[in-house]
Amino acid sequence: MLFFENDYSEGAHEKILSRLLETNRVQQIGYGNDEYCQSAKEKIRAACQCPDADIYFLVGGTQANATIISALLGPCEGAVSAVTGHINGHEAGAIEYTGHKVLALPSHDGKMDAGELEKLLKDFYADPTHPHMVHPGMVYISHPTEYGTLYTKGELEAISKVCRAYEIPLFLDGARLGYGLMSPGTDVTLPVLCQYCDCFYIGGTKVGALCGEAVVFPQKSPKRFFSQIKQHGALLAKGRLLGVQFDTLFTDNLYLEIAAHAIKMAQKMKKGLEELGYSFFLDSPTNQQFILMKDETLEKIKDQVRYSFWEKPDDTHTVIRFATSWATEEKDVDALLALLKQYA
Amino acid sequence: MLFFENDYSEGAHEKILSRLLETNRVQQIGYGNDEYCQSAKEKIRAACQCPDADIYFLVGGTQANATIISALLGPCEGAVSAVTGHINGHEAGAIEYTGHKVLALPSHDGKMDAGELEKLLKDFYADPTHPHMVHPGMVYISHPTEYGTLYTKGELEAISKVCRAYEIPLFLDGARLGYGLMSPGTDVTLPVLCQYCDCFYIGGTKVGALCGEAVVFPQKSPKRFFSQIKQHGALLAKGRLLGVQFDTLFTDNLYLEIAAHAIKMAQKMKKGLEELGYSFFLDSPTNQQFILMKDETLEKIKDQVRYSFWEKPDDTHTVIRFATSWATEEKDVDALLALLKQYA
Amino acid sequence: MLFFENDYSEGAHEKILSRLLETNRVQQIGYGNDEYCQSAKEKIRAACQCPDADIYFLVGGTQANATIISALLGPCEGAVSAVTGHINGHEAGAIEYTGHKVLALPSHDGKMDAGELEKLLKDFYADPTHPHMVHPGMVYISHPTEYGTLYTKGELEAISKVCRAYEIPLFLDGARLGYGLMSPGTDVTLPVLCQYCDCFYIGGTKVGALCGEAVVFPQKSPKRFFSQIKQHGALLAKGRLLGVQFDTLFTDNLYLEIAAHAIKMAQKMKKGLEELGYSFFLDSPTNQQFILMKDETLEKIKDQVRYSFWEKPDDTHTVIRFATSWATEEKDVDALLALLKQYA
Amino acid sequence: MLFFENDYSEGAHEKILSRLLETNRVQQIGYGNDEYCQSAKEKIRAACQCPDADIYFLVGGTQANATIISALLGPCEGAVSAVTGHINGHEAGAIEYTGHKVLALPSHDGKMDAGELEKLLKDFYADPTHPHMVHPGMVYISHPTEYGTLYTKGELEAISKVCRAYEIPLFLDGARLGYGLMSPGTDVTLPVLCQYCDCFYIGGTKVGALCGEAVVFPQKSPKRFFSQIKQHGALLAKGRLLGVQFDTLFTDNLYLEIAAHAIKMAQKMKKGLEELGYSFFLDSPTNQQFILMKDETLEKIKDQVRYSFWEKPDDTHTVIRFATSWATEEKDVDALLALLKQYA
Repeated sequence: MLFFENDYSEGAHEKILSRLLETNRVQQIGYGNDEYCQSAKEKIRAACQCPDADIYFLVGGTQANATIISALLGPCEGAVSAVTGHINGHEAGAIEYTGHKVLALPSHDGKMDAGELEKLLKDFYADPTHPHMVHPGMVYISHPTEYGTLYTKGELEAISKVCRAYEIPLFLDGARLGYGLMSPGTDVTLPVLCQYCDCFYIGGTKVGALCGEAVVFPQKSPKRFFSQIKQHGALLAKGRLLGVQFDTLFTDNLYLEIAAHAIKMAQKMKKGLEELGYSFFLDSPTNQQFILMKDETLEKIKDQVRYSFWEKPDDTHTVIRFATSWATEEKDVDALLALLKQYA
Repeated sequence: MLFFENDYSEGAHEKILSRLLETNRVQQIGYGNDEYCQSAKEKIRAACQCPDADIYFLVGGTQANATIISALLGPCEGAVSAVTGHINGHEAGAIEYTGHKVLALPSHDGKMDAGELEKLLKDFYADPTHPHMVHPGMVYISHPTEYGTLYTKGELEAISKVCRAYEIPLFLDGARLGYGLMSPGTDVTLPVLCQYCDCFYIGGTKVGALCGEAVVFPQKSPKRFFSQIKQHGALLAKGRLLGVQFDTLFTDNLYLEIAAHAIKMAQKMKKGLEELGYSFFLDSPTNQQFILMKDETLEKIKDQVRYSFWEKPDDTHTVIRFATSWATEEKDVDALLALLKQYA
Repeated sequence: MLFFENDYSEGAHEKILSRLLETNRVQQIGYGNDEYCQSAKEKIRAACQCPDADIYFLVGGTQANATIISALLGPCEGAVSAVTGHINGHEAGAIEYTGHKVLALPSHDGKMDAGELEKLLKDFYADPTHPHMVHPGMVYISHPTEYGTLYTKGELEAISKVCRAYEIPLFLDGARLGYGLMSPGTDVTLPVLCQYCDCFYIGGTKVGALCGEAVVFPQKSPKRFFSQIKQHGALLAKGRLLGVQFDTLFTDNLYLEIAAHAIKMAQKMKKGLEELGYSFFLDSPTNQQFILMKDETLEKIKDQVRYSFWEKPDDTHTVIRFATSWATEEKDVDALLALLKQYA
Repeated sequence: MLFFENDYSEGAHEKILSRLLETNRVQQIGYGNDEYCQSAKEKIRAACQCPDADIYFLVGGTQANATIISALLGPCEGAVSAVTGHINGHEAGAIEYTGHKVLALPSHDGKMDAGELEKLLKDFYADPTHPHMVHPGMVYISHPTEYGTLYTKGELEAISKVCRAYEIPLFLDGARLGYGLMSPGTDVTLPVLCQYCDCFYIGGTKVGALCGEAVVFPQKSPKRFFSQIKQHGALLAKGRLLGVQFDTLFTDNLYLEIAAHAIKMAQKMKKGLEELGYSFFLDSPTNQQFILMKDETLEKIKDQVRYSFWEKPDDTHTVIRFATSWATEEKDVDALLALLKQYA
């Protein structure tokens, strides 16, 4: 079975496992105060060129989103998100569970438009009944988006400018950040994110770790954020598990290297599919590729390859997603293309 | 430095790490639907002699408590707990964050008394204004308790009987369950827990795992519990991380074996301390030992041994905790006793 | 100044005030257990032809919506509403504050379409990832809607049928219910609402009362609803204030009579405006009329008449709302038409 | 039937009802922006000698407590209250529903001790694990307390001093404030409350109004408090209902005058009961009197007088409460004493 269903189907990069073994019996204090967490934070600050950043390690993406968003929002405030944002559809209401509304803007291939954001904010304050409404209190974007697309530096700057004009924080969900940073042609880097965002996280779970997301506050973290992590059930007694992983990922450029591999595999797959005449649902420069397939083709390949169902645009076609990852082997991409060639 | 501060200062049992390595590249579907989780659940069901139990794997203790308790409680209901219960003092308000009150009963060396529980329930329903109050909607106990003490089978039965008479679930926090099960003389076993509890969890984080708690519902789990886990940010994309660990812990009796080692070390330490004339804050049969120390002694040993501060009973003494674990080495216990002998 | 800004600009119908005076010194027990509440409930049950209905009196609309919706929803469930629903835009996030998402469907002049509702539910359960999403757990509609429009009996039946097929409750916000019931040509009556809804409320605040909404559960109310009212801060010590008002409104048909007066005034205004050539934003059969005005006209009348701003369709026009009520005097409608005649 | 069960068994002072009638048809804008609210606020500011106070009108006590407390608390903070505080026992978990814990201190006849408060705060910050706990984020006291007792100016000053040293707000629940202000010998006045509290409310429901509590922030109100009122379902469309009532209560000293009457009645009752040899559960200087009764006496009087059950100190006695109010008639007090004389 070929496995392109997602980017979290294997364990962790072997260097991480080695490092876990190596440090296993070293005794450390708990709750993220161990030396591995400290070292990982220093390395991330260096990679971000942001020596004063506050950094925390959380376990997963939904958890990071709920903990961060509820910490950034004030009373009667909501998070503005593209309608396709992960927080708006795929987190079982985790944001609302913290008492806050998600305010949806249109999606442009998964992205938010700075102009539409500005209009929402301007219209909100222009409406005399706005004290009866949910206040747009922050902006949530993802990079890469849920559709694998990327913001340019200019687009981030434009969104950030609107946020700062209205004094609301900009938060970037980087569950797949590595794959965004290594996409060919992108001008968005970790220092760029530190410049424009008030908070972002560097996704580990989908980029080579067993679990873990590194949350970066370039300026400063919200009041009592450590206690809020605890309150959200997001504080590991053995914080070292996250520290060791991120320390390894940020040693010798491992994080970016393995992300680059996934991109290389995705590009090869994309080129192959184009050559085979497949249509794409949209143009993704990262590790997720969305392909329009005939249902009859799907029927034929379904026992040989795992993919994600995305949507049904009509009665005879389906949009599916193939994802590569740090763990994808080139021979599997070749095999997929060979398989599809039979039905092209 | 001797390290008896807690039972989560090392990584994981080496068999777990080996198994993570061994299974690392096997591709699996996400969110706990992998084969390791399935296998671990079967083994736990067998160990519990409870073939129909619903089992879920969560990451940590506070997370498990908040997710389970909010799922078990109905509107206007609170969780009855001993005043010393972990949920009442050390979880930064995680239960209240889900909208529910903790209703505190007196602690008897960390334990709840069935008679006092019954009186609380009886008095509640006898009060004609009770619809204006928080309804006692479930019972929370921990085993071992926060003071290392244990319930007997008879005590569990008595509490369970009260719960069933009032039709409220009994939930047992087993963050250190292994150490309770292996305590000399206990008559509480996994099948006993299945008989008397509506939910309990088998703690992994403090008993040999990197992270993870196995939640057992002997009869059936609350409605939509999978989605509630997601909503609480407690669902791992790589559920395999938990599956592999518990599958290993429940293979060849590993979980109980390593717990037994911790108990053996604690008993040796306890006996040694008694012989040295130290007083105990209370009599703990498990891996946490609470000792009354002179402050002058503490001053002398503080650079050689790490311990937990517990409380200050007077101006010249302190109650401290020494904890052993699956990872404690006998030579360290010996060294601790030798060190203390100098100041006894 | 002519006052057509809303339907809550006066106090209460004088019969209510007389009755408050008359009963003022009669001593009663608190929290809605007084004899006026009991009598009002009996009269409402009779008007609904629903002898077993559970009835509660709450103070206001947002409060009723939040209390009812959070009581009807289970874990990880949201309320499906037209995007224009009051709960989705004008309650400062009161629903989300209870931990639940509002799931928005398109608005058709303020109304929800049964077919679109069915599609949402069907698609939801067809999506294999739905356990990761907010479950559509109930349906919220308003009647009249926020745009003054009405459901027909057939439309209510269709929505109700979908709800029952998917076993989710249908809740109807009747903040202006009287004006809907008295609209010419409607076939929706109180017994019809009892047939198709699982909960609805009969709005008092906007239909002649000082405050108060009568919540009707035709079958049965949610578990512990009295305590939930208390928990939401919605329980009046002097419940008699609500009891006396609804008892008066449901004596000698007062509620419907005064609603009919508002409709008569709105129909006269509507006819007059049509004759003057004004365009309507939509065709409303109730007490709210939405008119497209030139901004230059608005500028001229703004010191003589109060209205509600609705929206700006373009740079030179504004949609405004004129509302009549139980208290509107015919001479004021005449004066408004005379004023507008000057600028038509 | 004699009625001493509570202080909310009648409607409102007749001057309030007259004023509601008088202003009934005057058209006003909604949501508390009417002229009666403005006038009432000015009068309250004058009575408080606090010209810059922010004032809001809410409907009831539990609602006021939940709205204010959740607005004053930050993340992971709880409200410190005497264990007997209304928020801790009689509001069906309304505070916890907003996500915050109530931190209970011992009760001294219903009052909190400044020294115990200081110790709680000092111990909290001294505990190195305090980031894992709920932070004491504000102080809640009631005046009169739930036991009818009063703070002295000196006691309020002491509590306030502790709060300011730890930079946490002090909130005083004044549901029965009038009865406290008119108690013989008290040195606590409205200006004194403005000096020591960061927020308090002047109870209307129990002191002559149909409903309503006037919330006073002597310095300034929390961010976006208007929207928070809306979100809590506590904003009346017809805010005039509260404005007219408080405007009347604060005209010609009505509020204090009618409170003084209740106190006079309570003092007469107290003196009479003392003369009859009845024991008091505690010494209350306000309108609530707690009396120890033989159960056999209760049995005899129960069909002639209504009272509140308080508690059962032993098998043959009951503590009951008799409450007077602004509406109590002297002849009823006489009748009660005559009745009890038979069984003394």
